[in-house]
Amino acid sequence: MIKVYKGTFIDTPTPESFRVRDNHYALCDEGVLKSLTKHVPREYESLPVTDLGPGIVIPSFIDLHIHAPQHMQMGVGLDLELLDWLNTLTFPGETRFTSPEYARELYPLFAADLVRQGTLRAVVYGTVHSESTMILAEELEKAGLKAFVGKVNMDCHAPPELLEDRRQSLEETEAFCLKLGDKGSIRPILTPRFAPSCSIGLMKALGALSHRDDLPVQSHLSETVSETRWVSDLFPDSRNYTQVYDQNGLLGKGSLMAHAIFLNDEEVDLIVKRETTLVHCPSANSNLGSGIMPLARYLDRGVSLGLGTDVGAGHTTAMYRVITQAVTVSKLLKILQREKGQRAVSLSEAFFLATAGNGKFFEKRGMGSSGVFQGGMSFDALVLDMGLPPVVKLTPLNHLERFLYSGDDRNIKKRISGGKEL
Amino acid sequence: MIKVYKGTFIDTPTPESFRVRDNHYALCDEGVLKSLTKHVPREYESLPVTDLGPGIVIPSFIDLHIHAPQHMQMGVGLDLELLDWLNTLTFPGETRFTSPEYARELYPLFAADLVRQGTLRAVVYGTVHSESTMILAEELEKAGLKAFVGKVNMDCHAPPELLEDRRQSLEETEAFCLKLGDKGSIRPILTPRFAPSCSIGLMKALGALSHRDDLPVQSHLSETVSETRWVSDLFPDSRNYTQVYDQNGLLGKGSLMAHAIFLNDEEVDLIVKRETTLVHCPSANSNLGSGIMPLARYLDRGVSLGLGTDVGAGHTTAMYRVITQAVTVSKLLKILQREKGQRAVSLSEAFFLATAGNGKFFEKRGMGSSGVFQGGMSFDALVLDMGLPPVVKLTPLNHLERFLYSGDDRNIKKRISGGKEL
Repeated sequence: MIKVYKGTFIDTPTPESFRVRDNHYALCDEGVLKSLTKHVPREYESLPVTDLGPGIVIPSFIDLHIHAPQHMQMGVGLDLELLDWLNTLTFPGETRFTSPEYARELYPLFAADLVRQGTLRAVVYGTVHSESTMILAEELEKAGLKAFVGKVNMDCHAPPELLEDRRQSLEETEAFCLKLGDKGSIRPILTPRFAPSCSIGLMKALGALSHRDDLPVQSHLSETVSETRWVSDLFPDSRNYTQVYDQNGLLGKGSLMAHAIFLNDEEVDLIVKRETTLVHCPSANSNLGSGIMPLARYLDRGVSLGLGTDVGAGHTTAMYRVITQAVTVSKLLKILQREKGQRAVSLSEAFFLATAGNGKFFEKRGMGSSGVFQGGMSFDALVLDMGLPPVVKLTPLNHLERFLYSGDDRNIKKRISGGKEL
Repeated sequence: MIKVYKGTFIDTPTPESFRVRDNHYALCDEGVLKSLTKHVPREYESLPVTDLGPGIVIPSFIDLHIHAPQHMQMGVGLDLELLDWLNTLTFPGETRFTSPEYARELYPLFAADLVRQGTLRAVVYGTVHSESTMILAEELEKAGLKAFVGKVNMDCHAPPELLEDRRQSLEETEAFCLKLGDKGSIRPILTPRFAPSCSIGLMKALGALSHRDDLPVQSHLSETVSETRWVSDLFPDSRNYTQVYDQNGLLGKGSLMAHAIFLNDEEVDLIVKRETTLVHCPSANSNLGSGIMPLARYLDRGVSLGLGTDVGAGHTTAMYRVITQAVTVSKLLKILQREKGQRAVSLSEAFFLATAGNGKFFEKRGMGSSGVFQGGMSFDALVLDMGLPPVVKLTPLNHLERFLYSGDDRNIKKRISGGKEL
């Protein structure tokens, strides 16, 4: 069915600037955008037009790094640093997902929260528990999201309640991936938690599985100084943290590595060579006092980049706030380390990452393109209205800025995924 | 009338830690807290008890630095630095308040927003326009706030539409202060915008007025590097920015100086000596890429400190989010400038500033004490409930952390000022 929408559309086909198309008409065929034009094409003039209102329309958000089991933990215990935070709060919290009933109670709230905040696609961590993580996948599907979901693997340096036997971890992972399959709106992603919690044997086996079945991979890389030191101690045969993953077949085109704050040039070169995507999580990195990824430096070196909330170290599921946080921390990096001559990231660059940039991961994996309003792409959109009094005049771009910095989910009036309102 | 409330009360009588009083009873007499005890004192046992619910009760917030006319500008144009941001957005925006009708339309929204966010006391900038700023004062009063309101003074380096003649500026300021008086819930504060927009003559006259009529003063100090350089050029006879205010009688016990990012040791000593309060505005300073006040260093040196949203360079009126921002930027300062050995600020220290710390300014000026639940202080409180499912167990302190980082105004269930629900 063909539908026509009228609105003021803003997107970022390239990171350099916003594209604003005022009072345009979007023509959608079965949820795919056919055209976005100033006038309705003559042959469709007789169709009814859905007016999206006086606000603005933007691509819906995509979150490339979020831990579903940590949703209820957001904002709590952030005076701790990463490793203490994991041991004191996160691991005990994740242990509760041993119970599928607990998962059944909490994961619907997580899925609903993503939709509420306008995140309609996401790459999500579960826990080591297959059954609970399958419930997570079901709940995301019911809520109308497109997502990759990973059952976490940990066979060392985790509390006994979460520790897996290597063989069992592998078997359950294979079964989990098979069950989700590679056709639906929710697909599997291999999820070795991070190098310290995986034996070399487990990583190698997951790397082989990834190659054999063309499965994507997500993990954490170089988030804090002490973690990076620990990895050096644990893997004396690797030159650096990045090489640990590379040597075990986990660093590829389909790999997402979160954080990547303390990479040296050699590591960055390797990331570029492998076409791995680094996922910037500025809120989490600020909250735990980990550091700031040199995002502008990576962008300028051609690294493939994405953006994530990293809930629960991130305190919000709102990608719009992570966008502004990415800009803000880049400004602080510029001014606090002047001697390094780093430039700040612009709002359009950060917005690009959260929409078009993150969309590329889904596109590469055959989940349809999203993140830009362009013919042939899935019509995934948010209708925003800041509801300011008429006497306040905002340009469409100011309207968007106001939403990103100061708005909230109440300003998202419609959420459209593949042409369907959620 | 005596009222009894039951709840779990959290406050910070000292910055070092939170005090949690679980299931306690607050006894209030005409809006003043008499006692907060585990059991209702025998003589009041027959009184009805108002149960404040399963959440937590905290002191309501106090904002020591906010620009009312910039409320509609929040979040907009933050890719600019301070001086460009002033000229491009802020001055044109403030010019619209030449019209009292405009003020009458917008200031009620500003006042309502403060209450909505749980800010029940504030120190507020108006514009150069007396009439509009008086409307601001009236609207704040109607909304039930206690506030200081300042008519801005500018007799140089401002656009012609906002530029005042020195004598007229002084006369209008005197009339404004007289009209507001020193008895009500809304009181005047002298508001030379910042050194560059005031002639020495104007500053001296305002300084004299402050001494003669015991009026408090608010201004901006050392917010960006380029502004600080400009001040050096403009005032070659002053050793530094702080001295400009001191030499003109504007640096006293009743003075609030916002930002103070780039002070040298001599300036900090002078601030301590004069007992002037520095107001930290971490959101605004991050948004404009200005820098980060070395808050921990100042705290440890015994500087009198406060916290402000600095809307519109700050993107939110929510003091709870400014609290977490203060913690976060202090962590970034610590890790990005390791060589300086700066410690991070704790959540309780930042919370203290936004409640008990900011409260001291009102107390010193005879507006009643607020910010702590202590006998003899005004019962100014927010009732919070994060509404998490019962299966999620949060301690009262976790509940507060969750609100500060991840909550919003929907989690504020009641707002009580002087025992009256707003």
